[in-house]
Amino acid sequence: MIRIVAPALALLLTTASFAAPPNVADLRDARDETAWEILDGITTEVGQRLAGTPAEARGRDWAVAKLKALGFANVHVEPFTMPIWQRGEESAEIVSPFPQKLVVAALGNSGATPAGGVTGEIASFDGLDALAKAPDAAIKGKIVFVNHHMTAQQDGGSYGEAGAIRRMGPSIAAKKGALAIVIRSIGTDHHRLAHTGVQNWAESAQPIPAAALSVPDAEQLARVLERRKPVMLHLTLGAHMAGTGTSGNVVAEVPGRDPKAGIVLVGGHLDSWDLGTGAIDDASGLAIVTAAAKRIMITGKPRRTIRIVWFGAEEPGGFGGDAYAKAHVGERHVLVGESDSGADRVWRLELTAADTKGPLADRLTLALAPLGITRGHDAAHGGTDVAPIAKATGAPVIDLSQDATRYFDIHHTADDTIDKVDPEQMQQNVAAWTAVLAIAAEDRDELSPVK
Amino acid sequence: MIRIVAPALALLLTTASFAAPPNVADLRDARDETAWEILDGITTEVGQRLAGTPAEARGRDWAVAKLKALGFANVHVEPFTMPIWQRGEESAEIVSPFPQKLVVAALGNSGATPAGGVTGEIASFDGLDALAKAPDAAIKGKIVFVNHHMTAQQDGGSYGEAGAIRRMGPSIAAKKGALAIVIRSIGTDHHRLAHTGVQNWAESAQPIPAAALSVPDAEQLARVLERRKPVMLHLTLGAHMAGTGTSGNVVAEVPGRDPKAGIVLVGGHLDSWDLGTGAIDDASGLAIVTAAAKRIMITGKPRRTIRIVWFGAEEPGGFGGDAYAKAHVGERHVLVGESDSGADRVWRLELTAADTKGPLADRLTLALAPLGITRGHDAAHGGTDVAPIAKATGAPVIDLSQDATRYFDIHHTADDTIDKVDPEQMQQNVAAWTAVLAIAAEDRDELSPVK
Repeated sequence: MIRIVAPALALLLTTASFAAPPNVADLRDARDETAWEILDGITTEVGQRLAGTPAEARGRDWAVAKLKALGFANVHVEPFTMPIWQRGEESAEIVSPFPQKLVVAALGNSGATPAGGVTGEIASFDGLDALAKAPDAAIKGKIVFVNHHMTAQQDGGSYGEAGAIRRMGPSIAAKKGALAIVIRSIGTDHHRLAHTGVQNWAESAQPIPAAALSVPDAEQLARVLERRKPVMLHLTLGAHMAGTGTSGNVVAEVPGRDPKAGIVLVGGHLDSWDLGTGAIDDASGLAIVTAAAKRIMITGKPRRTIRIVWFGAEEPGGFGGDAYAKAHVGERHVLVGESDSGADRVWRLELTAADTKGPLADRLTLALAPLGITRGHDAAHGGTDVAPIAKATGAPVIDLSQDATRYFDIHHTADDTIDKVDPEQMQQNVAAWTAVLAIAAEDRDELSPVK
Repeated sequence: MIRIVAPALALLLTTASFAAPPNVADLRDARDETAWEILDGITTEVGQRLAGTPAEARGRDWAVAKLKALGFANVHVEPFTMPIWQRGEESAEIVSPFPQKLVVAALGNSGATPAGGVTGEIASFDGLDALAKAPDAAIKGKIVFVNHHMTAQQDGGSYGEAGAIRRMGPSIAAKKGALAIVIRSIGTDHHRLAHTGVQNWAESAQPIPAAALSVPDAEQLARVLERRKPVMLHLTLGAHMAGTGTSGNVVAEVPGRDPKAGIVLVGGHLDSWDLGTGAIDDASGLAIVTAAAKRIMITGKPRRTIRIVWFGAEEPGGFGGDAYAKAHVGERHVLVGESDSGADRVWRLELTAADTKGPLADRLTLALAPLGITRGHDAAHGGTDVAPIAKATGAPVIDLSQDATRYFDIHHTADDTIDKVDPEQMQQNVAAWTAVLAIAAEDRDELSPVK
């Protein structure tokens, strides 16, 4: 494996003396600072980028300027409208038997408490099943607390299960007449920073105040409840819907040599939650796929067009992915993928189910193997941003699974800041996506569409 | 080494059939849940215990009830008065060039901003020397920011150096005409939780708003400053002095057989900062020394009286230690020590300088060696709580140095909660103090007084 630094690579490849496209391994193993520059720039110069707000709009302005400066073609914004939710003030405290403050963060689409807050007795459940099975009488007029256990996993699988408490718990509690609901944060850390995240009200549910306690605070509340005295909680949430606003997808391209060869789409999302600076979720994803595309771009035109999309408004419900699918359903996408699980190393390649075998799948597998990436056996599903276009067009999907062991320590908290990103692991991600783009934008084969 | 569990030990030792006092090793190597019960109880049932407030008073009530229930003698409170400081609201945000919120916590004795906050340009310094050397004109009317580097160390030595920024920086900035000062937290973590802590105004300094940014926020501000545009910060602090209040030391004893044999004093502090629940600072210290004393108590009367003190109002300036020294200067203290660096393992024994050699020092060293504790070569200094009585009486001092590698990740933040305490390491602390008390309360020798 030859390692050459990017300036040398650029020099080598921008001279007219070569005929063949550059070796995939050389591209993959080059090193440059583009990803870090993007990550550092957007988290420092924009900060948090809550969907539909002026902060996200500043993010789009920053994105357009940066993508143009990097040399991409056809840089533009594709705007769309969406409902806006805002956080407002938030606080929680145990009133009795042991008065003390708790750390809390409203969940997306949470309702507000009355201005002075709401006080209620805690009705405690150890999971979603227990909440669902409880009689209305055990919940009506009370503040529901749902505790649970979530353990860090490399594939992030525990987020699916524990996350159901956040996604469904508020609606269940509301339908049973709860005053409000507080859940243990869907997170694997032990810091006093609550994990926010979206939840959507079931059709028959009237919105109530819904929030997450930090993990240490949830454990504290559980210890207080173990004393077997009634526990009264006072909760104040200013969360509210704030009308319709504008978000947008920022699009940039490396134009291909052959307009009929189709598009390879890679992306991440520009918006973030409002508590941190959205470094691992998902500035690092933008940084990784953009740096990879740039590495292809500086070597000359690939056969297919590489399209980068910095999706807007992913967090509140994938509005950017839906808008993209609607606008681009008529275009031929030969491969779609995104990076949206932080910046820790890629450990697994997943492809569309039809492609568990085949020469192109083998070429991708071989190119990723030197990075420590192995072939998985599940079907790739894409993420919130690219799943809609895959569904609408049947486009083949690629997943480069990132190590999620640390991801849910930080995810959706104030701690989502640049210091949590390991530059070496981010380089490995850039290398992996570079190899994928080098092959997918040039290869004579295509992966099979999803049936 | 024989390990016997506490109930068996208690049974063995409360029978009338033995003549000699129990073996030091057996006492040391027993296991019981007393320390964890104290830690869990006070952090759950009282929570934060800011000095001079009703929360600290609830802590004293809890302490008296618990110490009586454990069977200690002469349990009582020794009240004293002290000036009270309270936090109030607090927030910070970069106004320009890149608007964003920063996480901030007022430092002890900080002044308040005007009600709507104060806005000023940042004057940035990379340490206390740079601040001290700066001309007044570079600071007047600005908000001072002091950045620094602090690395985790086993002996906590970096706290002394970096901590000077917190203790002295605000007075220096105030005397040079600063509007306010924000420092990088005196901490070794990377979480968005600021580290508070006390600072006292120099006589010639007029109080100004003084606060700490969390480490990620200080690094963020430094990155913004690197863009070389003027940085405007808006700071709101409601911190204020709130008159004179009552605190107190909670005292309990294991009475000795020989009233002339003197007192062995061990302690920790009951008060905490207001952000966490004071688990590592210093409920764990109370728990450790109290559990050790109880282990001696249940085996029968030692020759000397063991006195436990849960000191009040340590954090704002050692008011409890001063009050104790004033009240008890006439009593013969043969050894004083405290536990106030968390609950991680003890790694070093330090004694009063005159006792670097001698048979009693050797007996202590030998009894601690099986716990992995080695003899240091510096003079013990005690902590804020016992140093005043040592100074007033010349009493010999013992330090059991705890591993401080993790301590300043958590110290003085909202993250100071029970989940940060490792029960196994806390047991080792109890074992170490049990060995010390078993020897010091019984031995025919005494350590040399401090000259």
